[in-house]
Amino acid sequence: MNPETRRRLAEVSTATLTTVLFKHGFRNLFLQGPRLVNPSAPRMVGPAYTLRYIPAREDLDRLDAFLDPGHPQRRGIEECPAGSVFVVDSRGDPKAASAGGILLTRLMARGAAGAVTDGGFRDTPEIAQMPWPIYHAAPSAPTNLIRHHAADLNIPIACGEVPVYPGDIMVGDGEGVVCIPAHLADQVAEEAFEQTVVEDFVQERVAAGAGLRGLYPMTDPRNRELLAAWRSERGR
Amino acid sequence: MNPETRRRLAEVSTATLTTVLFKHGFRNLFLQGPRLVNPSAPRMVGPAYTLRYIPAREDLDRLDAFLDPGHPQRRGIEECPAGSVFVVDSRGDPKAASAGGILLTRLMARGAAGAVTDGGFRDTPEIAQMPWPIYHAAPSAPTNLIRHHAADLNIPIACGEVPVYPGDIMVGDGEGVVCIPAHLADQVAEEAFEQTVVEDFVQERVAAGAGLRGLYPMTDPRNRELLAAWRSERGR
Amino acid sequence: MNPETRRRLAEVSTATLTTVLFKHGFRNLFLQGPRLVNPSAPRMVGPAYTLRYIPAREDLDRLDAFLDPGHPQRRGIEECPAGSVFVVDSRGDPKAASAGGILLTRLMARGAAGAVTDGGFRDTPEIAQMPWPIYHAAPSAPTNLIRHHAADLNIPIACGEVPVYPGDIMVGDGEGVVCIPAHLADQVAEEAFEQTVVEDFVQERVAAGAGLRGLYPMTDPRNRELLAAWRSERGR
Amino acid sequence: MNPETRRRLAEVSTATLTTVLFKHGFRNLFLQGPRLVNPSAPRMVGPAYTLRYIPAREDLDRLDAFLDPGHPQRRGIEECPAGSVFVVDSRGDPKAASAGGILLTRLMARGAAGAVTDGGFRDTPEIAQMPWPIYHAAPSAPTNLIRHHAADLNIPIACGEVPVYPGDIMVGDGEGVVCIPAHLADQVAEEAFEQTVVEDFVQERVAAGAGLRGLYPMTDPRNRELLAAWRSERGR
Amino acid sequence: MNPETRRRLAEVSTATLTTVLFKHGFRNLFLQGPRLVNPSAPRMVGPAYTLRYIPAREDLDRLDAFLDPGHPQRRGIEECPAGSVFVVDSRGDPKAASAGGILLTRLMARGAAGAVTDGGFRDTPEIAQMPWPIYHAAPSAPTNLIRHHAADLNIPIACGEVPVYPGDIMVGDGEGVVCIPAHLADQVAEEAFEQTVVEDFVQERVAAGAGLRGLYPMTDPRNRELLAAWRSERGR
Amino acid sequence: MNPETRRRLAEVSTATLTTVLFKHGFRNLFLQGPRLVNPSAPRMVGPAYTLRYIPAREDLDRLDAFLDPGHPQRRGIEECPAGSVFVVDSRGDPKAASAGGILLTRLMARGAAGAVTDGGFRDTPEIAQMPWPIYHAAPSAPTNLIRHHAADLNIPIACGEVPVYPGDIMVGDGEGVVCIPAHLADQVAEEAFEQTVVEDFVQERVAAGAGLRGLYPMTDPRNRELLAAWRSERGR
Repeated sequence: MNPETRRRLAEVSTATLTTVLFKHGFRNLFLQGPRLVNPSAPRMVGPAYTLRYIPAREDLDRLDAFLDPGHPQRRGIEECPAGSVFVVDSRGDPKAASAGGILLTRLMARGAAGAVTDGGFRDTPEIAQMPWPIYHAAPSAPTNLIRHHAADLNIPIACGEVPVYPGDIMVGDGEGVVCIPAHLADQVAEEAFEQTVVEDFVQERVAAGAGLRGLYPMTDPRNRELLAAWRSERGR
Repeated sequence: MNPETRRRLAEVSTATLTTVLFKHGFRNLFLQGPRLVNPSAPRMVGPAYTLRYIPAREDLDRLDAFLDPGHPQRRGIEECPAGSVFVVDSRGDPKAASAGGILLTRLMARGAAGAVTDGGFRDTPEIAQMPWPIYHAAPSAPTNLIRHHAADLNIPIACGEVPVYPGDIMVGDGEGVVCIPAHLADQVAEEAFEQTVVEDFVQERVAAGAGLRGLYPMTDPRNRELLAAWRSERGR
Repeated sequence: MNPETRRRLAEVSTATLTTVLFKHGFRNLFLQGPRLVNPSAPRMVGPAYTLRYIPAREDLDRLDAFLDPGHPQRRGIEECPAGSVFVVDSRGDPKAASAGGILLTRLMARGAAGAVTDGGFRDTPEIAQMPWPIYHAAPSAPTNLIRHHAADLNIPIACGEVPVYPGDIMVGDGEGVVCIPAHLADQVAEEAFEQTVVEDFVQERVAAGAGLRGLYPMTDPRNRELLAAWRSERGR
Repeated sequence: MNPETRRRLAEVSTATLTTVLFKHGFRNLFLQGPRLVNPSAPRMVGPAYTLRYIPAREDLDRLDAFLDPGHPQRRGIEECPAGSVFVVDSRGDPKAASAGGILLTRLMARGAAGAVTDGGFRDTPEIAQMPWPIYHAAPSAPTNLIRHHAADLNIPIACGEVPVYPGDIMVGDGEGVVCIPAHLADQVAEEAFEQTVVEDFVQERVAAGAGLRGLYPMTDPRNRELLAAWRSERGR
Repeated sequence: MNPETRRRLAEVSTATLTTVLFKHGFRNLFLQGPRLVNPSAPRMVGPAYTLRYIPAREDLDRLDAFLDPGHPQRRGIEECPAGSVFVVDSRGDPKAASAGGILLTRLMARGAAGAVTDGGFRDTPEIAQMPWPIYHAAPSAPTNLIRHHAADLNIPIACGEVPVYPGDIMVGDGEGVVCIPAHLADQVAEEAFEQTVVEDFVQERVAAGAGLRGLYPMTDPRNRELLAAWRSERGR
Repeated sequence: MNPETRRRLAEVSTATLTTVLFKHGFRNLFLQGPRLVNPSAPRMVGPAYTLRYIPAREDLDRLDAFLDPGHPQRRGIEECPAGSVFVVDSRGDPKAASAGGILLTRLMARGAAGAVTDGGFRDTPEIAQMPWPIYHAAPSAPTNLIRHHAADLNIPIACGEVPVYPGDIMVGDGEGVVCIPAHLADQVAEEAFEQTVVEDFVQERVAAGAGLRGLYPMTDPRNRELLAAWRSERGR
C-alpha cells in the first residue's frame, strides 16, 4: 500500500475516518464489537487478509484437524503478508476463541500489522501485554474447534457487521476499527488528514472557551482566516 | 441422491432425525430460526445448494447490480439443480429480504426442492400460498441490497448457526429444518425410519393409557414383544 | 384447588388477571415468551408442578440417562398430579426441546391441566393438534439432552422470567400464561371475575360508539347506573 | 391525504414500497418487529398520529393515572383523527401492553385507519378477530402502567427502529408496515403503482416458466414489448 | 439545586442510593448500560438536561444539518445550564456516536456537571483523559447522523431503560448512574448520607472479622450502641 | 481438595484447561459472561459452593427479608466453607446485584477462595480493590431484592450457561472462569500442567521466530527432542 497513505492513516482517528467515509456515502464501515485488547500497542494500519469461520461440526473439528498443514487457520497465519491485518469472521460469536497467544505471536513475528476478530481471542492476559494491535469482542478461553470451523482464506467476509474485502485498508485506534474500501484509501487518507487539522484547531479553540456557533463546521470566513493563521503558525 | 433415502426422509420428522444424529455424536444440526412459511407445502428433502451473503456496501449494492447476469443471487436461482434445496446464509439477519416471490417462484418452476434462509423472505403473503416448502426467520419487505451482498455460491456456509456444506441433505417439516452430513444421509435415513416405527408404536400405546416406564425407552421385554406383534400386524 | 376458583379463572382473561395482580402490587407475573401451541385447546387452569433444567454436560446427559427410572423428567411426567400444570424452567432456551409429543400425551392422559416451558417443545406439528393446552417459546426439534439436564422436581423455579412456586395457580389463554401466588388465588379469581363484568359492559358500550371519558375507568355516576342496569338485565 | 394516493397505496405491497423508497435513497423505513395481528383485516393506509411512551415510574404510573382525562394514552385515543394510523413508540418492549381491546375498539369506532406498536397489545384473542388492521411485536397481557408511561402525543418518534413523523403515511399489509415520508407520498404511490404492474407481469411470466435473465429487472427490449402488450391487454 | 444535597450526593454511592430509593418504592432508577469512561473524573451530581434522538432519515440527517444554528444537538450543548448533567436518549444504540470530543469539551467548558448517553460517545481515547465525568455504553466512532436524529431538548426521556425527567438529579460514580426524582432529592440525599455511615461502620466491622448475623441490617441494640460509639468517635 | 491439584490449577490458564477438557469430550465448561473485577487478585481455585436465585416477587422480597437469619443469601455467606468458591446463579441477569462489598468482604474474611456470579456485584469501585478474586458480568448498583430471590444453597445450578455442581472445581484467571467436574479434577490438573510446559516451550520458540508447521501440535520427533532438552534445562 501507498506509504504516504499508511503514514497519514496512522495519524488520524477512526472517528474522523467515519466522517470522511460518510461524506462518500458510506454508513457502515466501523466494526461493531471489536475493542483494543492491548492499550499500549501502536496504531494499526494495513490491508485486510481474511479468515472465515463457519460453525464447527463434531466429526470434522477435532484436535487432530491441526495436524493437517493445510488447515486454513494455521495456513492463514503462515501466509498473511507482512504489513497486512489478519481479519477473522467469527460470526460475532466469542463463545470460543478465534485464535490464541501462540498464533498471534507468530503473526506478529511474521510482520503482520495487527489482528481483528468479531469473536474472541484466548490467552487474553498474555496478549494484552503484546506491543502489537489486537482487537476482539471478548476474552474467550475455549479452543476454536468447539464452535468454529476454519473454512477459507482471503475471500470477502463479514466482520463486526461490516463487509471486509481482502485488500481493504483496516485502521485501528483506541476506539475501534474502521474498514476503508481499497480503491478509496488514498483519497480518504488525504481528506482525513486535512480534516484532522481542522478538528485539532477547533478542539483547541473550544478548550480555550469558544462557542460552537459558526465554529464547527467551519463556515464563517473569519474562522477560515483564523484557521489559516493557526496552520501557518504550526506548520500544518 | 439415493431415491430410497429421499423417500424415507420424507416420512420421518426432524425431531426423530436430531435424535438419530445425536446418537452419531452431532448436537448442532437443527437450524435455529427458520420456520415454515407455507403450512400446506409438502415435506422438504434435498441436497443443499448454497448462497452466501455478506453485509452490503453502498457503492456495490445498488439496484443496477441486478443488471449483471453474473450477480450471484440471480445466477444461483438459475443454477440451483432440480431436486436441491436453496440454502441462504444471511447471517441470521431478517432486516432485509434474502429473496422474494418472483425468485422463489422461479426456483420452484426450475424444480428445486425448497428454499431456506436464516434471514427473511419478502412477499410473505404471496409465498405463504405457494405449494412448495419455504423457511425463513421472519417476514422482511426490504430488498436484499439494503443489507446483504450476494458474495458467492455453493461453498460451506452457516445457516441458523448450523454448518451447511453443499450436498448435505436438508430435511424440513412443520417444526423446522435439519441438515444431515452428506456421507451419513443413507444411514441416518434408515435409522430414523426404524426409530419412527418405534415412536409410532409408543405414541399409540401412551395415547391408550400406558405409562412411560419400560416403554420409552423400551426396557421391558413385554413391550418389545408387543412392538414385534404390532409391527407384523401393520406390516412395518 | 377451590373448584369455584378454578371455574372463575377459566372464564377471565390473563389480561384482566395481570391488572388485578397489579392492584395487589405485582408487576411481574405474566410469563414472557411462552405462547399457546394448540389454539383449539381449552383454557388452562391448575396449580404448578415444576421441573428444573440446568445446562447439559456431555458425560451425564447421554441417551442412556433415560434408562434410569428416576430420571427427573420422566419421573415428573408420571408424578405430576391430575389437575396440575407441568411448568418447566428451561432458562428461556428453546435450542433443544423441553419435552415432546409422547411425554405430553402421557401428561394429558394422566389428567394434567396443561404444560408450559420457557424453552421449546418438539413434535410441534403433532402437539399443535392436541386438545389440551401447551405453551412454549418456539418449536424445537432437538432432544433435551443436547442442552438441558433435568435437575429436580417441584421446587421454586423461574419460567419466562417469572417466579413460579409449586402450587401457584397457572392460568393460560390465547394470549399467554399468568402465575397467581397460591395464597391469593381465591381473592384474585373473585376480583377478576367482577372486573370482567365491568370490562364486558365497557367493551359493549364502546363497540356501540361510546367515548372513553368517564367510562373507562368508570368514574361517571351515570355510567355506574347503566352498569348496574346492564348487570341485572344479564344476571351477572 | 390525497384520495388517489390512498387508493393506490391500498393496492401495492410493502415490499414494492421499500424498493421504490430505496430508489429515493431510503434504507430504513420498514418497521422491524410489528406484525399483523388480525389477518382478515383490510389493508392499512393513513397518516401517522403518534403516542410516545417512556419507562414507567412507580409513583406516577398507578391505576388512578387513568382518572385524569388528560392522560395522553386516553386523550390520544379520543383525538386521533379519522383516517389516521395510531402509531406507538414503546421502545420495542412488549413486556407490557401498549393498549388493549377496549381502546382499540374505540379507535376503530372513531374511524382511525389502524394501530401500530413496536411493543405488544393485550386482549390478543379478541383483537385478532377485529376487522381492522392492528400490528404489534408480541401479545402482551400486562397493563401498560407496569412498564410504560404515556409521555406525549403527535411528536416525531421511533417505532420499530424507524423514524415516524406525524403525518408520514403508514402502509401495512400482511408482511408488515412501511412509513413513507409525508412529502414523498404521492410520488412514491405513483411509482409503486407502476412498479406493481411490472412485477405482476414478471411474476406471471416466471410462473409460466420464463427465466430471470433479461426479465427481472427488465433489460431485454423484447420483454419490454411483451410488457406493453400485456398492459394494453389488461388495461393496466 | 440545594447545595447541601449536592454535597451529600457527592459522598454517597449509587449502590446506597438505589437501596434508599427501593425503600421509597422505586425499582428502576439505575441506568442499565452507561459506564464511566474516564476513571479519574470527579463524582457526578446535577439536574438532568435532556436530548432525545430518534432514528436518522437519509434526507434530513446530512452533514449540512449542522449548519443550522438551531440543530438540537448543537443548541443543547450551548444551552445546558452550568451545573446540569447532559443526558441523551439514544435508544440504547451505540452503533453511532451521541456526541464526541469537541462537544463534550464545550459542555465541560460551559460548566455542565457531566454527560450521559445510553448509546456511545466518539473520540473515546481523548475523552477518557478528560477530568470530567462521562458515561456511555460503548465507544462509537461514527458520526451521530448515521443513525441518530436530534429531535428535541429537555423533555422526559428514556435513558438506560430508566425514565429521566428534566430536573431529576443524576448521580454517577465508578459503578454507574442513578436518577433521583427531583422532588425526592433532598430526602434521599439525607437518608443515603445516614445509610452510608451505617454501611461504613458495618464494612469496618466485617473487615475486622465480625459475622453478618444481627449486624446487617442493624437490629440488635448492642450493635446500635456500638454504632453510636463509633459515630461519636469519628464525628459522623 | 487435593493440595497438589490445587497447586497445579493455580499455575495453568483457563485456556489450557478448556483444551484439556475438550480432549475429555467437554465443550461447555467455560463460563460465558463473568469477568475478573479486581485484576490484582491472586488466581482462583476451589470447589463450588452454590447459591441459586429465581426472580423476585414483591411480597416476598422486601428489605425485611434480611432480618431472617435463615435467608439463603446471608446463610450461604456464613456457611460457604473456607477454600470454596461462592458461585451464584443469577440467570445471567446483571440488572440487580447478586451481592455487594460487605458480603464479599465477609466471604473473604471467612476464607472463601473467590466469588462468581453471572449477574453483577454492587460496590464495584470498592471490590475492584479487594486482593481476592471476584468475577461478575457487569457492575450493578441495585440491591438484589429488586430482581432476585435467594431460593436455595448448594444444589446444581447454571452459571454463565455452564452446569455447576457443588464440589466441581472452579478455576479463574484474567480471562475468566472454568468449571472442572469434580471427579476429573486431579487428572485434568495433571494433564493441564503437562500441556502448559509444552505451550511455554512452543510460545518461546515462536517468539524466537519459529514457524507453526510441525511445531504445534508437537508431531515431529525433532521437536520432541528439543522439548525434552528444554525441559531438562528448565527443570520442568
